[in-house]
Amino acid sequence: MRNDQVGVGVVGYGYWGPNLVRNFAASPQANVVAVSDLDQSRLATCRLAHPSVQTTNRYQDLLDDPTIEAIAIATPAHTHYEMALAALRSGKHVLVEKPLASSADLVRRLIDEAERRRLILMVDHTFLYTPAVQKIKELVDKDDIGDIYYYDSTRVSLGLFQSDVSVIWDLAVHDLAIIDHIIDDIPIAVSATACRHVAGAPENMAHLTLFFQNSCVAHVNVNWLSPVKVRQTFIGGSKKMIVYNDLEPTEKIKVYDKGITVDGASENAHQFRIGYRAGDMWAPHISAKEALRSEVEHFTDCVRNGARPLSDAQSGLRVVEILEAASWSIAAQGKPVLLRQPPRIRAAAIG
Amino acid sequence: MRNDQVGVGVVGYGYWGPNLVRNFAASPQANVVAVSDLDQSRLATCRLAHPSVQTTNRYQDLLDDPTIEAIAIATPAHTHYEMALAALRSGKHVLVEKPLASSADLVRRLIDEAERRRLILMVDHTFLYTPAVQKIKELVDKDDIGDIYYYDSTRVSLGLFQSDVSVIWDLAVHDLAIIDHIIDDIPIAVSATACRHVAGAPENMAHLTLFFQNSCVAHVNVNWLSPVKVRQTFIGGSKKMIVYNDLEPTEKIKVYDKGITVDGASENAHQFRIGYRAGDMWAPHISAKEALRSEVEHFTDCVRNGARPLSDAQSGLRVVEILEAASWSIAAQGKPVLLRQPPRIRAAAIG
Amino acid sequence: MRNDQVGVGVVGYGYWGPNLVRNFAASPQANVVAVSDLDQSRLATCRLAHPSVQTTNRYQDLLDDPTIEAIAIATPAHTHYEMALAALRSGKHVLVEKPLASSADLVRRLIDEAERRRLILMVDHTFLYTPAVQKIKELVDKDDIGDIYYYDSTRVSLGLFQSDVSVIWDLAVHDLAIIDHIIDDIPIAVSATACRHVAGAPENMAHLTLFFQNSCVAHVNVNWLSPVKVRQTFIGGSKKMIVYNDLEPTEKIKVYDKGITVDGASENAHQFRIGYRAGDMWAPHISAKEALRSEVEHFTDCVRNGARPLSDAQSGLRVVEILEAASWSIAAQGKPVLLRQPPRIRAAAIG
Amino acid sequence: MRNDQVGVGVVGYGYWGPNLVRNFAASPQANVVAVSDLDQSRLATCRLAHPSVQTTNRYQDLLDDPTIEAIAIATPAHTHYEMALAALRSGKHVLVEKPLASSADLVRRLIDEAERRRLILMVDHTFLYTPAVQKIKELVDKDDIGDIYYYDSTRVSLGLFQSDVSVIWDLAVHDLAIIDHIIDDIPIAVSATACRHVAGAPENMAHLTLFFQNSCVAHVNVNWLSPVKVRQTFIGGSKKMIVYNDLEPTEKIKVYDKGITVDGASENAHQFRIGYRAGDMWAPHISAKEALRSEVEHFTDCVRNGARPLSDAQSGLRVVEILEAASWSIAAQGKPVLLRQPPRIRAAAIG
Repeated sequence: MRNDQVGVGVVGYGYWGPNLVRNFAASPQANVVAVSDLDQSRLATCRLAHPSVQTTNRYQDLLDDPTIEAIAIATPAHTHYEMALAALRSGKHVLVEKPLASSADLVRRLIDEAERRRLILMVDHTFLYTPAVQKIKELVDKDDIGDIYYYDSTRVSLGLFQSDVSVIWDLAVHDLAIIDHIIDDIPIAVSATACRHVAGAPENMAHLTLFFQNSCVAHVNVNWLSPVKVRQTFIGGSKKMIVYNDLEPTEKIKVYDKGITVDGASENAHQFRIGYRAGDMWAPHISAKEALRSEVEHFTDCVRNGARPLSDAQSGLRVVEILEAASWSIAAQGKPVLLRQPPRIRAAAIG
Repeated sequence: MRNDQVGVGVVGYGYWGPNLVRNFAASPQANVVAVSDLDQSRLATCRLAHPSVQTTNRYQDLLDDPTIEAIAIATPAHTHYEMALAALRSGKHVLVEKPLASSADLVRRLIDEAERRRLILMVDHTFLYTPAVQKIKELVDKDDIGDIYYYDSTRVSLGLFQSDVSVIWDLAVHDLAIIDHIIDDIPIAVSATACRHVAGAPENMAHLTLFFQNSCVAHVNVNWLSPVKVRQTFIGGSKKMIVYNDLEPTEKIKVYDKGITVDGASENAHQFRIGYRAGDMWAPHISAKEALRSEVEHFTDCVRNGARPLSDAQSGLRVVEILEAASWSIAAQGKPVLLRQPPRIRAAAIG
Repeated sequence: MRNDQVGVGVVGYGYWGPNLVRNFAASPQANVVAVSDLDQSRLATCRLAHPSVQTTNRYQDLLDDPTIEAIAIATPAHTHYEMALAALRSGKHVLVEKPLASSADLVRRLIDEAERRRLILMVDHTFLYTPAVQKIKELVDKDDIGDIYYYDSTRVSLGLFQSDVSVIWDLAVHDLAIIDHIIDDIPIAVSATACRHVAGAPENMAHLTLFFQNSCVAHVNVNWLSPVKVRQTFIGGSKKMIVYNDLEPTEKIKVYDKGITVDGASENAHQFRIGYRAGDMWAPHISAKEALRSEVEHFTDCVRNGARPLSDAQSGLRVVEILEAASWSIAAQGKPVLLRQPPRIRAAAIG
Repeated sequence: MRNDQVGVGVVGYGYWGPNLVRNFAASPQANVVAVSDLDQSRLATCRLAHPSVQTTNRYQDLLDDPTIEAIAIATPAHTHYEMALAALRSGKHVLVEKPLASSADLVRRLIDEAERRRLILMVDHTFLYTPAVQKIKELVDKDDIGDIYYYDSTRVSLGLFQSDVSVIWDLAVHDLAIIDHIIDDIPIAVSATACRHVAGAPENMAHLTLFFQNSCVAHVNVNWLSPVKVRQTFIGGSKKMIVYNDLEPTEKIKVYDKGITVDGASENAHQFRIGYRAGDMWAPHISAKEALRSEVEHFTDCVRNGARPLSDAQSGLRVVEILEAASWSIAAQGKPVLLRQPPRIRAAAIG
């Protein structure tokens, strides 16, 4: 390990852990010192792919290792809080797979711990680091899209059913992170419905509507029990509209110069004359860089420079607050739940 | 006009009226006697296409004509009730474009009037007569799909904004009619959210969740302000899953032999072992017959034989009750609204 | 008929004739006086749709009618020559469905007749009047595409098998007309292969390569016996590349800012360093105007003003010369056949 | 290395070599002993991914190693002959990347050498080992498709331009191997056309027609300079038709119950009545197993058991004979070139 490299320990080598290890290992700024997992066969797989990385089934070994400055957590969602808290208390910077923790209250405790110790606490909202979402953010920020009327996403496939969290904590979390990143408006309430098709298991299908202070509305359709895989988002704006299809190999983003025009508006809705504008479609070239590579480089940069990460713990908190409210709404069959304090305003007060 | 033909009058020659006239005119069992519309230029267009049809700007002329046995109504939604009531009172059988009327109460009054006079009152739920929906119904009835887990539909495009009804009364009505036709379960509550992007105009974008007595759930996504047109429905079943894409020229229905298997179920959700089954896909051949042609033939058959139409007024009522409840839910930002009496049970008691 | 309208007679009311009649009827500059066909049932269909048009089973009636100035011919391909010749000899302007005649020699005789009598002789190369091909022509003419490297088209579907001409005279003719229109290079030879799958019937599947004087090459794949319908053309250029998919409802043309760069070129091919350029994709808005409507309006304009039609008889001749050469090449299993005189040069000498 | 494992040496670690090493390394029947390449940086990459594999820049080291029983060759096409010959002369079994050699004559010399020494000589026709092509083979062999009318393939993308072989030797070779595998008919002649868009480089775009003894015809469209990637093959049969799209993630093969019916056939082609049959479409489930994994396992099985490989050197010869004939036809602008001796008959006589 070179002196300027960040020593990294990764806990959890199941589905996502190997991707973290591979990307940290490929990054010149980082050095993967050790991996821990309770499952010996996973550790054997890790040693085969990364012979120079130490493996252990005791998480504490990572925390005790002084050459490890940062911990990346890729364990099941319900363990995130205790894993992250222990790492922070050991003085490690932390990158946690989404969701940051299983309740807003637990996230707040992690934030307190990290702030007190002046450690980086970053949440792995991977989509923020995809070239596609970065391009959307750029188009929105340049005002090419105009006022955002809506964000409407479908994220469905067959599997993978999770046993400890419902489909909104597993899939809708991606859209909420993207929404938090690109939409400059304050979410004020959420209405969500869901159902389970395996008795006793978490909800595997859900629909979530997020109301904003201004005219924007967001809707997310997530499902683990779909015959085909869909990863498609429509973003309607006053100037242009976007279709973002993450399954397209190259043309992931299509920008439509389409919309409506309103003539002769008056108090009487029956007097409206609505026209339809249909112009060109444009698919900007999207880089093929792997998002997780950009993300781990950003994390090591923040560790080195003490900078605030793009997907900092506050963004993780805002997303978890909506997930939590959505869970309450689901229990009440869609009854809207207010987001008590406009998250961004509070964030500003704290931050 | 031959003696055995049903004399038909059509009121409204805007968007849908010409299709009704063309299909009645092509049917050997019907004879289009006259068309009425307030707009003289539309009547001129009608005369050009159908020189033998009389035209008038007085609806009363149709009602007074003894050679007209049946009236087809294709006027704006808010006029359906008065148009249909007048026709029934003149002793005419009636076919009404969807929705049957603008409230469940008004639909019930029309039903009373039709039953007292022993007249046919049918609602134009066109999709029930499409070969695609008929094929889905056949597959569901043969139990090829198994228990229906969900119906999830996206029906979005750019336009046509209506001035007197919201997008759910214009577009979701199609899905609710299909759901009422193919799903043998009782809807008990609805949660819906919506928003408008033209101040003062009806809601142009909505999401509706329909809860059923058993495990099934239905969701409908409708939008007049979408960059691309989508007409796609996913139907998840315990045995098979269907993707119904109405924009496909030939392969409108794809049946996936896919699903999940649950092993080792226990009280503890963490113990579930869920397996994924991926088999063949099959796209049954779908006839290309125009739905409206089948529908007008069914209507004239019912008029001749006194039979109960497939899309009878009771089905129109069940659909309007859901639309009405959805409107209330929309006003309360997704608060669930109970459907007071299970519609099918009541229908059985009455019918 | 108003004085300024061109009186039109249409011969042939099978597959294409009704489209011609409908579009001439809808055009203010034309008046469809009469239609002739040998089949009485087709004439009955015509009378139903167009009550004011006279019908006859004698073509001579059209030729004898002094109110008819122009004849549109939509009969089987092998009859085009005699039909067109008789019309010209009766002093009528003529629009002939593609191909103009069944051999280049016969086309030349028609051209002589029309030029001697100073009558318009136009061939119905419909695609030249589509908004999509007009947009491609515009892009090529503005040099947005650069040097055209190739035109590669696939035009296949199930049916309609013709009994008097092979698939190249039926389908490849469309591509040859488009190529003649947009590519500013001189075709010098053709190699084609084909086969028949119904003994005794014309070839139902063919592949045709057209060599040009410069680097451009064109290839056309046509087939009446394909499981799915494809209407797709790739146009490769030195600056940009086009994918033209005529079955797309709106995005028919996609322009790709893609290509290659050649570095360090030398005599030694092994020294080449070829780079790949991948930029944005752009789908220009395409009007939805029906091509045949534009075409009949252009025809009546030419009749009124004596202008040379875009799809004049010379373009029909150039296309038939290639079809004829392709037929010879097919008989010789792909042996290249030289196009004896560079068509455009000769055309310029004559024209 | 366990005793029962086949010791393997791989020469060439550019584009394809890493895939070979990875699959041999993952196979329990093989052990990758060493890799050779002239480029030191590639060897470094190899050592990083496979720390236990020896690396060398001298091919002779592999030939001299007695623990290496088999050599896999993944060097540029023009070196295949000398590489394979040296390996055979050293008593090694050989797997050669396609094409087997750069002329039929050279392939025959390799066959002689391998037969004299009773060594396995196998060509890497990867597609024969894909689950998709195996499914097509199965459908054809069961006579589900009926008589094969045609095989028509499009295999185009942007890149990778080769410097030592034309696009037919790089891409069409895949289709010719598939055709050789699934079509039970004797190819008798080939007509091909091609062009180059980089002066001095090999042809980058080609079209090839292969004529068979019976009614079947095959056509292959290959291009390194296409705006989009296409990997699509249509197979027309008398009973059913297949669309094989290799870019589809799951539904790679669609079987269409479509075709024509011929009534009232007579000598007079004009009397034919051709009907069109449109039935269901069916997409059989295709396994996701990596083809190269199956292929290296098959190779090691053949080495162990002395069995004849599916893609034996005779199949490599038949494919190269067609490629060679196609090259001659290209030089003569499509002039058909006879395949002198029907390959399968000769193969039978020899084999």
